[in-house]
Amino acid sequence: MTTFSMYSASVPVFKQILNSLLAILDKAEAHAAEKKIDPAALLQFRLFPDMLPFTRQIQIACDFAKGAAARLGGLDVPSYEDNEVSFADLKARIAKTLAYIDSVPQDAIAGSEGRAITTGSGEKTKHFTGQTYLFHYALPHFFFHATTAYDILRHNGLDIGKKNFIGTY
Amino acid sequence: MTTFSMYSASVPVFKQILNSLLAILDKAEAHAAEKKIDPAALLQFRLFPDMLPFTRQIQIACDFAKGAAARLGGLDVPSYEDNEVSFADLKARIAKTLAYIDSVPQDAIAGSEGRAITTGSGEKTKHFTGQTYLFHYALPHFFFHATTAYDILRHNGLDIGKKNFIGTY
Repeated sequence: MTTFSMYSASVPVFKQILNSLLAILDKAEAHAAEKKIDPAALLQFRLFPDMLPFTRQIQIACDFAKGAAARLGGLDVPSYEDNEVSFADLKARIAKTLAYIDSVPQDAIAGSEGRAITTGSGEKTKHFTGQTYLFHYALPHFFFHATTAYDILRHNGLDIGKKNFIGTY
Repeated sequence: MTTFSMYSASVPVFKQILNSLLAILDKAEAHAAEKKIDPAALLQFRLFPDMLPFTRQIQIACDFAKGAAARLGGLDVPSYEDNEVSFADLKARIAKTLAYIDSVPQDAIAGSEGRAITTGSGEKTKHFTGQTYLFHYALPHFFFHATTAYDILRHNGLDIGKKNFIGTY
């Protein structure tokens, strides 16, 4: 009988999509170079003026991945600086996120469905069980930002398709 | 001890986001009426010429929800016609999808992590276990289309935010 755990529903899923985003960033960087597009035109692009730009979408997707792996594993969430200004910087952030989530012991996450999880502070404090946090909060937010990053590049003519987003698993 | 199952990782997640999309469609419909926007301008909007329009994004999000609930539950996937041409039609499709996924017995899905799942046909046939199908295929595709539907409306100036997408859970 196949069994599954909170681990198989979290870290491997984040890895799948973060690896897709890495490959998409490679394509975006090459596309900008080839077409002599200022990278900032893509990195700072927003689908609407009060939406977050591409760079923030990638940063926040990374944050939900590392936040979920850490919180489900009962660890402190590592803090990243949000100082990325190039495709190379964003790829490094994703690589750092991938290395981090891979470092969280599988056993620490495996039985986390009932773990008490708290996010935010003050009025924005939220309390979850591990499973509500992962399925109703962390994964939806993660996919929201990852997809919006994809949509920004697609809207700007990058030659990618849904296969590039889904990636390999 | 809290336990979880393939059920808690699937149907309630689809319901959360489909209910969000229902409320967002209400807002889009009201916005179009108020601003005298031809509904088709939103319903047929694409973020890039070779991307799918809004209506298809909603239809396909519904398809991944009903497909996942049916396949994980060991049932035949119901077929929908893809004949929606208005906001009301799309809301009805989501409502029908919600009613369907709610009708699949929780027990039928609960232990489906090892169930053999096949999608597509011919060269496009894919074989999964239940858990690989849900976490690496159905949920990513579902969120991809649901978020892109949101991004299309946001790009067109609809006054919504991420909270409207995440919804209540």
